[in-house]
Amino acid sequence: MLDFSPSPETEALVARTRQFVEEVVIPREAEVASEPHRLESIRGELQQAAREAELFAPRVPRDHGGLGLNWRDSALVFETAGRSLLGPQALNCAAPDEGNMHLLHAVGSAAQQARYYAPLARGQVRSAFAMTEPAPGAGSDPSMLSTRAERDGDGWVINGDKWFISGADGAAFAICMARTDDGPTMFLVDADNPGFEITALTPTLDHAFPGGHCEVRFADCKVGADAVLGEIGKGYDYAQLRLGPGRLTHCMRWLGIAGRALDIAMDYVNQRESFKKRLAQHQEMQRLVAESAIEMHASRLMIWQAAWCLDRGEKALHETSMTKVFVAEAVNRVVDRALQMCGARGISEYLPLANFYREIRGFRIYDGATEVHRASIGIRLLREAAKRSDT
Amino acid sequence: MLDFSPSPETEALVARTRQFVEEVVIPREAEVASEPHRLESIRGELQQAAREAELFAPRVPRDHGGLGLNWRDSALVFETAGRSLLGPQALNCAAPDEGNMHLLHAVGSAAQQARYYAPLARGQVRSAFAMTEPAPGAGSDPSMLSTRAERDGDGWVINGDKWFISGADGAAFAICMARTDDGPTMFLVDADNPGFEITALTPTLDHAFPGGHCEVRFADCKVGADAVLGEIGKGYDYAQLRLGPGRLTHCMRWLGIAGRALDIAMDYVNQRESFKKRLAQHQEMQRLVAESAIEMHASRLMIWQAAWCLDRGEKALHETSMTKVFVAEAVNRVVDRALQMCGARGISEYLPLANFYREIRGFRIYDGATEVHRASIGIRLLREAAKRSDT
Amino acid sequence: MLDFSPSPETEALVARTRQFVEEVVIPREAEVASEPHRLESIRGELQQAAREAELFAPRVPRDHGGLGLNWRDSALVFETAGRSLLGPQALNCAAPDEGNMHLLHAVGSAAQQARYYAPLARGQVRSAFAMTEPAPGAGSDPSMLSTRAERDGDGWVINGDKWFISGADGAAFAICMARTDDGPTMFLVDADNPGFEITALTPTLDHAFPGGHCEVRFADCKVGADAVLGEIGKGYDYAQLRLGPGRLTHCMRWLGIAGRALDIAMDYVNQRESFKKRLAQHQEMQRLVAESAIEMHASRLMIWQAAWCLDRGEKALHETSMTKVFVAEAVNRVVDRALQMCGARGISEYLPLANFYREIRGFRIYDGATEVHRASIGIRLLREAAKRSDT
Amino acid sequence: MLDFSPSPETEALVARTRQFVEEVVIPREAEVASEPHRLESIRGELQQAAREAELFAPRVPRDHGGLGLNWRDSALVFETAGRSLLGPQALNCAAPDEGNMHLLHAVGSAAQQARYYAPLARGQVRSAFAMTEPAPGAGSDPSMLSTRAERDGDGWVINGDKWFISGADGAAFAICMARTDDGPTMFLVDADNPGFEITALTPTLDHAFPGGHCEVRFADCKVGADAVLGEIGKGYDYAQLRLGPGRLTHCMRWLGIAGRALDIAMDYVNQRESFKKRLAQHQEMQRLVAESAIEMHASRLMIWQAAWCLDRGEKALHETSMTKVFVAEAVNRVVDRALQMCGARGISEYLPLANFYREIRGFRIYDGATEVHRASIGIRLLREAAKRSDT
Repeated sequence: MLDFSPSPETEALVARTRQFVEEVVIPREAEVASEPHRLESIRGELQQAAREAELFAPRVPRDHGGLGLNWRDSALVFETAGRSLLGPQALNCAAPDEGNMHLLHAVGSAAQQARYYAPLARGQVRSAFAMTEPAPGAGSDPSMLSTRAERDGDGWVINGDKWFISGADGAAFAICMARTDDGPTMFLVDADNPGFEITALTPTLDHAFPGGHCEVRFADCKVGADAVLGEIGKGYDYAQLRLGPGRLTHCMRWLGIAGRALDIAMDYVNQRESFKKRLAQHQEMQRLVAESAIEMHASRLMIWQAAWCLDRGEKALHETSMTKVFVAEAVNRVVDRALQMCGARGISEYLPLANFYREIRGFRIYDGATEVHRASIGIRLLREAAKRSDT
Repeated sequence: MLDFSPSPETEALVARTRQFVEEVVIPREAEVASEPHRLESIRGELQQAAREAELFAPRVPRDHGGLGLNWRDSALVFETAGRSLLGPQALNCAAPDEGNMHLLHAVGSAAQQARYYAPLARGQVRSAFAMTEPAPGAGSDPSMLSTRAERDGDGWVINGDKWFISGADGAAFAICMARTDDGPTMFLVDADNPGFEITALTPTLDHAFPGGHCEVRFADCKVGADAVLGEIGKGYDYAQLRLGPGRLTHCMRWLGIAGRALDIAMDYVNQRESFKKRLAQHQEMQRLVAESAIEMHASRLMIWQAAWCLDRGEKALHETSMTKVFVAEAVNRVVDRALQMCGARGISEYLPLANFYREIRGFRIYDGATEVHRASIGIRLLREAAKRSDT
Repeated sequence: MLDFSPSPETEALVARTRQFVEEVVIPREAEVASEPHRLESIRGELQQAAREAELFAPRVPRDHGGLGLNWRDSALVFETAGRSLLGPQALNCAAPDEGNMHLLHAVGSAAQQARYYAPLARGQVRSAFAMTEPAPGAGSDPSMLSTRAERDGDGWVINGDKWFISGADGAAFAICMARTDDGPTMFLVDADNPGFEITALTPTLDHAFPGGHCEVRFADCKVGADAVLGEIGKGYDYAQLRLGPGRLTHCMRWLGIAGRALDIAMDYVNQRESFKKRLAQHQEMQRLVAESAIEMHASRLMIWQAAWCLDRGEKALHETSMTKVFVAEAVNRVVDRALQMCGARGISEYLPLANFYREIRGFRIYDGATEVHRASIGIRLLREAAKRSDT
Repeated sequence: MLDFSPSPETEALVARTRQFVEEVVIPREAEVASEPHRLESIRGELQQAAREAELFAPRVPRDHGGLGLNWRDSALVFETAGRSLLGPQALNCAAPDEGNMHLLHAVGSAAQQARYYAPLARGQVRSAFAMTEPAPGAGSDPSMLSTRAERDGDGWVINGDKWFISGADGAAFAICMARTDDGPTMFLVDADNPGFEITALTPTLDHAFPGGHCEVRFADCKVGADAVLGEIGKGYDYAQLRLGPGRLTHCMRWLGIAGRALDIAMDYVNQRESFKKRLAQHQEMQRLVAESAIEMHASRLMIWQAAWCLDRGEKALHETSMTKVFVAEAVNRVVDRALQMCGARGISEYLPLANFYREIRGFRIYDGATEVHRASIGIRLLREAAKRSDT
């Protein structure tokens, strides 16, 4: 039966998360803005505070010290955490660690779980996911994967260049996707492996990822047989396993940013006057508020529905793809409207909107550009329609 | 707990409804298009078929011969019925009768229920809802109500002009909103009352309403004390009671039209070739499909959520208002894209798309124009934000 | 030197055209709406009035009895005439005759000019342009042309089906595009040729074309050697010659409709009150006006610039293509906004907006759907960019 | 007569400007990006190069050492210069100096021209325009001006706070708008006046203005009688005189940025492959190119037309307002599409697109936010319509 009620326990958890974000996390934002090099240490302090507030690691099972939430409850908590760019860091539910944890927990061996998953879940280390390659390698089209792993005794030697590897600088390890003779395969590579090299920190429009976006070179990178994550040749299957939740959690977190942006803008137009009225009395402002609120409402419901699919054990590639397109575009519009509502003040760094504006732009490109998703969604639906008409 | 599973019984009901619409209802559309004067008689035949198929009157309680569905199950059934403009007629869940039944059942006296509700629920008669007035009367702004009812002995005399009274021609009775000394009040007026006059059938872009859109004059229209629906002075409260479900059921039905339009367009581009490819292989077609599918998915979830609010006994004015804006705009875009995908054939009447295009345009205006809703939504949210900031 | 001043003579001509449309043409619209079968006779009366007003045949050379305007002056006159759907009919500058005259004058032999061009220019007959074919023939992609003309003694036999042949019913002749062994070729076919058959009048969303949109069959249609228009095998070149001006004059005329729609809507919101203000005082109405005015201003300038290209003797396929996309989309939005501004009255046929809404929808599809134009424009620009980068 | 041909001289000048920007200006961009503190010195070097290339000061009269272009020719040159954010700096046609020069030349006394205009025209100094105030002062609504100037002997004492005063840091003087008993008045204030204080450099999303956006305090700022620019009480008239050209030259320059962004994106998709095609072969990329090209074409024509109005001596407030709205919105979309076309590379700083994205956002707010312009345009047109209907 259709039901849109979170449980009272979840509502209480969300309320505690909200309070934590407002009172503990947001007050630290100014420090990060003025002293970006302190991001990692502030992250550590916020994680400790989250542990004490019993809000740490919402998706990590209880026996690993987390809250053990399902995807639907996570949707509510992640959105709330996402009201600050530091919130998901504090709760240890930020990308790319969140997706890596999901993948390691699902397909890692016991030894890999102990060595890689456990410290990640505890927030002791960060990680990276090394799949995207510079042209002419694997970008939107995974079939162009050019990094290769060749057998070398019991182990493997990996060679290839990656880029836009978020969080690689400072990560303890990376999950590396490489082509083998038996198909694409994922490898766990320690950052102190001499064959793992960060060749550049790519300067980008966004700055919120601890460790930035890195260019990484695997140069005769030797790893043992135990570095293979899951099974050889199943790299794409695992990438898909990570993909749906990965992009959906992005949606959850960014929806939080949208909510905060709208709140800031509403407060502004509720106070500021122009043309003998409060700005809030101008119909154009009311329209901008309504359009954002409606799109956020639709975004939230699409996220919840896709989370429900994941909780049922589905891959939900279609649902998360539709949701990702809608939410990424909507969140960009919501932040853009908020900035516009605040006028020159929105352009200034006195409000966090200008920063949100920079940070969210990539969301329409990361995890599949809107145009690529739309083509995939269209092709899928057109094929289904063709099948229906044939019968 | 968030849940997006309809019950198996509901799914079975939806499947039967779908089959009924495809096999019984849609085949009659061509007759209505070529011989519009036969709409009422075809409607009667389809209603009989729906009774036999045990699909009749989904929202009417079982003790009145209906299916007794709650709003959430209705959302699924109404959308399915809505795939044909005749579907809701066949199932007796079309506007304005559906809203009038809801209102009569909620506030009508036992005598009024026997006299007005029962035959309406059985599909024996049609009804009208006489609220909207030509300028300078009550349109978007209900405070401009100019029709008056004055006490006349035990009863009342009503005077005033109404327009855009859907279905009035051929209706057995109308619910008339009029201003009294004790506030706006609803009256039940039989169509054979000599003071009830249909002065014109307004020619409009849409033609699907049996009885059209009428201009109605209440000229020294005398009614008894028992004609007051509910209590004197509570007209606006009742209008609001009818409003939420009224606009939401519109959304449900029109979403069905959008789904059918998209299916027709997908079939077309799956077959037609151009520039050495099937049209479906052109990325622009895939994009149009994806955009429509995403907006329909969001529409459906917003409808379900608002239906859940109604099922909880809420008025859901905010939720149904947001949903109405989004769905009305989205459905218009979906039909527009479908027509565009079919090119010249979309412009022709060989496909039903040109007709859908005419029929749905009013939906962005009826039950509150998009611009009016957006202003209301914005004002409501800005006030709430102001309250939050004050505390 | 850039100059945006029409000459005083042109301004005077436009003023006279405006007056003629307001005082002579628009008053006849109601008759056509209520008695559509009288369209042809009313057209004749209006043409006579235009002759007397010295406004007839603006693009026809003076020695053929027209005004002999260049394309830039035509842009101003056609837009003004276009304020009524009957205006271009009255002035003998409507599609498809206008494009056919242009083509006949450019490439017809002296005999063809005397037989076909002269009576067309005088408004004594109507004509058709028979190029588009039903699937799988020539639609957006002209390379799919399937109508064939084979040599038959000195003459030709044409076989094939066409559809969406505007104005064919009642036309004196058609220009037919057919494939020959020597390439696509245009033929002049008299309507009384026994091999020329109108098989159906396609019912469509729009109704303003005298003669409607017809399905035409060329069945063993024998024509003489003198039926070849211009040279054998040059059919595509001629189609392109007609194409640029053809779509540009569409833009001119439809921009007139947009202008009238906006004026009607402004008058409405200037008079009607709601929520204690005139509608015109609501910022949402001001926004809708401004957006339409801005898009119409841009449309007009793009039309003027493309007309200037044509006056310089260029084919202007790029300019007219860009203009067609922008103007078709803009005009549809302008009419849609006007209808929305007028609320329920906009939906009614009491204003001409509902009719404009039906009439203009095809404009985004006729003469190349927006999606097809965008792809062509993009390909052209990307190729030019590639060439620039190579050098 | 409508004419869209620049003169051969202008075309030659544009070609030389283009070459200068490509060969001299753009190569310096990387230095400014990596060492922003060197912006002023690089600006000086580029201005010297522009002088040598005889491209300096396009709008300054020849007798003051400039090129003496009219507005139409300026439109072409400014757009070309605008392809680099440094281009208008190099040519001494950047805001706010360009607008200040226009104003000083139009209303300054001979002494003011010698003291303020001449060194500005020669590029020896920079200037600021101090009108905007923080809330609750003059922002979009100039009637809220709160800075006051009171008579003090022969001279004046100015008190008040300003913000978003572009270029104030490092400027030699500012034009300050202040309220007097005789109405709003403009004053010339030297930057070394002890009452002129830069209280903060506002951190903002954009960084291209030399001197940034400053918060300025006039604290008992004493100026002489000769500091009044033009006449006392005419401040608003002068502001309007500056306004039209000011916002139009913004449009010219930013259109250059749009053109460069599109070129960069076309080069990228012409080279990069995905899904077995060059990206340029994907229809979605072609669409993005076409939409940008069409909007840029419309933007350019609107700019030219408004420039022609200015050249005729009109204030052109309506035309420049419509143009500003359209161009600001269009340029933001063009840059956004270009970034999207380049995917992850677009997000990186390896291309200038991310920087353009930050720089242009304010353009939808500066010189009147889009929403404010739309309301003004709508009100103006609705009033004109009301007048027409009254007659």
